[in-house]
Amino acid sequence: MKMEESIKHMRICFVGDSFVNGFGDPTFLGWAGRLCVAAQQQGHEITYYNLGIRGQTSRQIARRWQSEVTARLPEGIDGRIVFSFGANDVILENGAVRVPPAESLHNARSILTAAQQLFPTIMVGPTPLLEDELDQRLSLLSQQLAQLCQEIQIPYLEVFTALQHNQIWKEEVAANDGAHPRAAGYAQLAQLVQDWSAWQSWITREEP
Amino acid sequence: MKMEESIKHMRICFVGDSFVNGFGDPTFLGWAGRLCVAAQQQGHEITYYNLGIRGQTSRQIARRWQSEVTARLPEGIDGRIVFSFGANDVILENGAVRVPPAESLHNARSILTAAQQLFPTIMVGPTPLLEDELDQRLSLLSQQLAQLCQEIQIPYLEVFTALQHNQIWKEEVAANDGAHPRAAGYAQLAQLVQDWSAWQSWITREEP
Repeated sequence: MKMEESIKHMRICFVGDSFVNGFGDPTFLGWAGRLCVAAQQQGHEITYYNLGIRGQTSRQIARRWQSEVTARLPEGIDGRIVFSFGANDVILENGAVRVPPAESLHNARSILTAAQQLFPTIMVGPTPLLEDELDQRLSLLSQQLAQLCQEIQIPYLEVFTALQHNQIWKEEVAANDGAHPRAAGYAQLAQLVQDWSAWQSWITREEP
Repeated sequence: MKMEESIKHMRICFVGDSFVNGFGDPTFLGWAGRLCVAAQQQGHEITYYNLGIRGQTSRQIARRWQSEVTARLPEGIDGRIVFSFGANDVILENGAVRVPPAESLHNARSILTAAQQLFPTIMVGPTPLLEDELDQRLSLLSQQLAQLCQEIQIPYLEVFTALQHNQIWKEEVAANDGAHPRAAGYAQLAQLVQDWSAWQSWITREEP
């Protein structure tokens, strides 16, 4: 059992919510799996760990990401982390948002600054929910996450606006459960990340 | 954002090692992802959580499975667990097996009896490593796991012998890293599970 791996092999943890999980996609790849397929086809060798959990807010992700990631990315290997969350924070529960904006940002800062000390880390912003009130809060959160990431030097991809105007995304979400797309929508999101220069330089960067 | 789900929707955690992760498969589905695609095509709605971690023994899985599963399977939903591990237990490290057989069985018993009290649980046995000395130990462990599962009434699928004689599996493993197949080999393993009557009755069983 030869377990050595090529120097180019990397292990990527995608951490977040149902959108990271790819919920709704009948191919079970979501955007994260599609990115790995594409990177593999570009010649990268990848171990793919999907740590998206349905319904999770930044508060819940803050509690569990580190134990789950460190179990998967032992020291000495080329480990990477991609985060994406936010949508569940802005949802109402008993008349209040599940996580207030200031706490969302506090959680994100604490997660991202700890993560970047361990492994190369990037973030993909939340996707629109196509409901006006939620999307007003989520659009603002996405912009605030962008500012935070700029400040702490984490590459951040804003996808909110692009998907709000993406016909394929909108039609699939509307025809599905009102929040999650199916295969074609996730492929659109994967393409946005794929076309992002920071993703391309991150995936081709040699570590450690 | 409509988050209600149909009564037929189930969330499945696949817990184990690199084989559960689908390591080596350029499609990033492995056997677990392929099973979900097939079940989806049969009309089941599934949330797919892959909790396979490369290199993990039964000792490591015993430590983390419960926190990872309970984060993904909240009470009141139709949650299910599939376990598969064993190969890493029989590998030599500093002249001794990583986990002695008696401890492997103890770990498996403790994991499976706790899991079955939480959710409908099944187990798929370890796959051969195509190296004589390792496979002697692993074949024995697979048989002992079968006995244990019979005793505690967990459906168990023995795949060791079938894959030892499966040309597609053997050729892909040999041409890859000596342990893991690629897409076609994982498709063979998925088909073994797919054809297992206990899988079919488990996946069609209505819960909770």
